[in-house]
Amino acid sequence: MPRLDPAARKAFLGEFPHWREVAGRDAISRHFKFPDFSTAFAFMTRVALLAEKLDHHPEWTNVYNTVDIILSTHDAGGVTEKDVALAKAIEGLAV
Amino acid sequence: MPRLDPAARKAFLGEFPHWREVAGRDAISRHFKFPDFSTAFAFMTRVALLAEKLDHHPEWTNVYNTVDIILSTHDAGGVTEKDVALAKAIEGLAV
Amino acid sequence: MPRLDPAARKAFLGEFPHWREVAGRDAISRHFKFPDFSTAFAFMTRVALLAEKLDHHPEWTNVYNTVDIILSTHDAGGVTEKDVALAKAIEGLAV
Amino acid sequence: MPRLDPAARKAFLGEFPHWREVAGRDAISRHFKFPDFSTAFAFMTRVALLAEKLDHHPEWTNVYNTVDIILSTHDAGGVTEKDVALAKAIEGLAV
Repeated sequence: MPRLDPAARKAFLGEFPHWREVAGRDAISRHFKFPDFSTAFAFMTRVALLAEKLDHHPEWTNVYNTVDIILSTHDAGGVTEKDVALAKAIEGLAV
Repeated sequence: MPRLDPAARKAFLGEFPHWREVAGRDAISRHFKFPDFSTAFAFMTRVALLAEKLDHHPEWTNVYNTVDIILSTHDAGGVTEKDVALAKAIEGLAV
Repeated sequence: MPRLDPAARKAFLGEFPHWREVAGRDAISRHFKFPDFSTAFAFMTRVALLAEKLDHHPEWTNVYNTVDIILSTHDAGGVTEKDVALAKAIEGLAV
Repeated sequence: MPRLDPAARKAFLGEFPHWREVAGRDAISRHFKFPDFSTAFAFMTRVALLAEKLDHHPEWTNVYNTVDIILSTHDAGGVTEKDVALAKAIEGLAV
């Protein structure tokens, strides 16, 4: 799977402004903040269901009510359509 | 822990009309419906967190986007303050 | 999707003796018992991941450390290959 | 809540050698590796249940089949008995 070309990446980041480039890596990320741990972990459960379904998994960190998701495709060494698909599915959770 | 007296039970059911008596048992229940399995299971995860925290667990059934929760205190043979506390905590999830 | 023919159903139940016919319904079920609620719910989380991945969901009940899973395909009015696939995936969790 | 004194910290790390000091921070961490994402996330669900019960939450990162847990008590600016209690409870999950 090829990495996203610059135009496709720019289009994604334009359409989903909560997602950003990760400094020093070919990856995209989004920061989420919730009212408490329970809502944060429920969100993570939903993302886990998406990840297994799409067979593509995030690199993510949770600290109490925050979740930081980084997406990149290991085998491609950067952002691919798989990452865009997972990011859009996460956006579809309407958080 | 004693079972709820009739006045306390009536007060609870009056305040939380989604909860009902279970026919043929000393128990209370509520039916929940969600958009899909993902939202239903995320809700279950939040209820699981509450149940472990309160050390009181539901008897519950999930079928795709629905969750049915029955509460009763086994050791007391019926509805107690523990059930009311868990039911109110579940209501606090604001579903 | 057609319902399993009697030979295929018998073969499944022979290979996976923990699974049984459900009385009065065209469905199969298995009872699971765990050390505590935490292990039971962790198992449920794994089954939820499988269910979303296979796009086929169980009808299941949890009471503290027990989980009862019933499988049947609503659209077919009975047990189909989808149920067998989910049951085998659950068995693959090696519980 | 006071930070652990050096003797108590040394005793903990001696008893639980999978846990280590975090470089550059007053915190302890453990790395976990699982067969796949499903088992890793089921473990995370069990840790989430513990965290809510103990009202003390980890700073943790998951990448597919690995989970890295960092424990420190924000209000105390370092490792306290709360972290030791959560770490021991996590060890009790027998992973």
